[in-house]
Amino acid sequence: MTRKRRLLSGMRPTGKLHLGNYVGALENWIKLQDEFESYHFVADWHTLTTDAEHTRIIPENTREMVTDWLAAGLDPQKSPLFIQSQIKQHAELHLIFSMLITTSRLERNPTLKEQARDLGLETRMSYGHLGYPVLQAADILMYKGEVVPVGEDQLPHIEMAREIARRFNHVYSPRQMVFPEPEGRLSQFPRLPGLDGNRMSKSLGNTILLSDPPDEIRRKMRTAVTDPQKIRRGDPGRPDVCLVFTYHKRFTPDGVAEIRSGCESGALGCVECKQRCADSVISHVAPVQERRRHLEEYPEQVTEVLHEGNQRARAVAAKTMDEVHEVMGFG
Amino acid sequence: MTRKRRLLSGMRPTGKLHLGNYVGALENWIKLQDEFESYHFVADWHTLTTDAEHTRIIPENTREMVTDWLAAGLDPQKSPLFIQSQIKQHAELHLIFSMLITTSRLERNPTLKEQARDLGLETRMSYGHLGYPVLQAADILMYKGEVVPVGEDQLPHIEMAREIARRFNHVYSPRQMVFPEPEGRLSQFPRLPGLDGNRMSKSLGNTILLSDPPDEIRRKMRTAVTDPQKIRRGDPGRPDVCLVFTYHKRFTPDGVAEIRSGCESGALGCVECKQRCADSVISHVAPVQERRRHLEEYPEQVTEVLHEGNQRARAVAAKTMDEVHEVMGFG
Repeated sequence: MTRKRRLLSGMRPTGKLHLGNYVGALENWIKLQDEFESYHFVADWHTLTTDAEHTRIIPENTREMVTDWLAAGLDPQKSPLFIQSQIKQHAELHLIFSMLITTSRLERNPTLKEQARDLGLETRMSYGHLGYPVLQAADILMYKGEVVPVGEDQLPHIEMAREIARRFNHVYSPRQMVFPEPEGRLSQFPRLPGLDGNRMSKSLGNTILLSDPPDEIRRKMRTAVTDPQKIRRGDPGRPDVCLVFTYHKRFTPDGVAEIRSGCESGALGCVECKQRCADSVISHVAPVQERRRHLEEYPEQVTEVLHEGNQRARAVAAKTMDEVHEVMGFG
Repeated sequence: MTRKRRLLSGMRPTGKLHLGNYVGALENWIKLQDEFESYHFVADWHTLTTDAEHTRIIPENTREMVTDWLAAGLDPQKSPLFIQSQIKQHAELHLIFSMLITTSRLERNPTLKEQARDLGLETRMSYGHLGYPVLQAADILMYKGEVVPVGEDQLPHIEMAREIARRFNHVYSPRQMVFPEPEGRLSQFPRLPGLDGNRMSKSLGNTILLSDPPDEIRRKMRTAVTDPQKIRRGDPGRPDVCLVFTYHKRFTPDGVAEIRSGCESGALGCVECKQRCADSVISHVAPVQERRRHLEEYPEQVTEVLHEGNQRARAVAAKTMDEVHEVMGFG
């Protein structure tokens, strides 16, 4: 029997997840949890890199997010779900790794540059924000993560984690590889856009939440942008420029051909098309919401999952740090 | 009874201390240990900022340095002596503080700029080297240090620790000041130069060690640079340009006037003057060396001091981090 490879993945605690989180990332994690030995963590210290001020909401956001993780089908028996800030070893490994990468290397990070520009942070970027890939390397390598499911924009960070692993091994343990060089694995599902066509994001108010009640999903779907040339039923539409059609491809796979021809001929109006799309989404999330209701009724189950996950993660982390101290000869 | 103020001070573990460490810093610590509630730590993680490669020597260097601390008169009953890397909370507080200071603020640090230039590190400076004042702020504020004995070059770092304390208090606990703003306290003893007139440093081979045997002190003293215009006895000398006279001022305080006139008149030759200086140093360090011999005979005493010091420091650190987590609302 061959050993399963280790997969590491985390999300910042943003509270209840939206369909974009689900389709882009969480479904992928769930799909991979049999193939890999997975570790899933709440990246709460990472939230400080771009917003150090609003920390009091983190525990509630953590709880809501992990509830969605479980409801969507992450299995804590297979994969520990844990909270980064509860595994203090991440901070120590981050400190050690911070000595193994140059400042100029971090400054050349294209993803960071873009993010800083988007947030208007160029001159006010915190030291910790600059070092975000170092913390991420510690998150991954603490568990000797070999595979990391990522979006395209995260690939430069994985490359830095590889460099740090290589440098650590070279300096401290040339004969025994303490850390593997992790690989980024791009998701097969492209992220779902928000209802206005932009990236789905709570701050843009264009989300459907995984936990939205059916009426809310119907209401939100009615606001989705469609082909602007199709004003009323009878007008021929262009499915490939219609946001709702993007959702159909994901949530109404069996009906795609029929919807396309209905839209193009004009026989299918947008109102009806959106109703149908809302119904597809609703039935897709129904089992998730059913499990969520159960977890809301027994919140101690979520507490217990995190407690156990933290313990399991902490045991692995302690073992890794023993090795780190051993090869460095101190600490 | 008024509470004693807290004093924090650390040294990187460089092994056996030289007279420059002793006169510039350690004597000052000893003098202040009654006036303040002092915490003295071995800054071992800090050694990684400028040399991440040679870590295996750290435990031995730590032990030799702490043996000198004790031999010189630091009293572990009064002040815990502890090892930074054994108090893992420093790494967590460092991570949190890294989010509260901008990269550009750290890049404006004049001491770092100079150090980078001296070490030829400008483009190869590690991320952790840039953030060295952030780690130092965590070291100080973990114990709510109010006073930090420093050299002039360290004052910019204390200023950054003050800024970080202020920012933390402002963001997370506006009504309750978690951290004091520490003050730098300049030593009253100027550092002793090395035997060649440069900064005393092991890497320059110009040191007298606190633990050097008498014959070694005599031998090294014979190599000290003196007034180049005074070639032989009879030549009039200029004590104020003579390195040995600097040592006399510190170690032969009662003989200074007589030595000055003997040098200036030419009656005192350099050979005799150096012998006398060596004797002064030898008798000054004799009680320190006597205590060192005892500690070398009972090395478990040093182990025990560090073990207890670590425990005491860890208890204070755990309390501080409880407060930090409380006001941040997570962690």
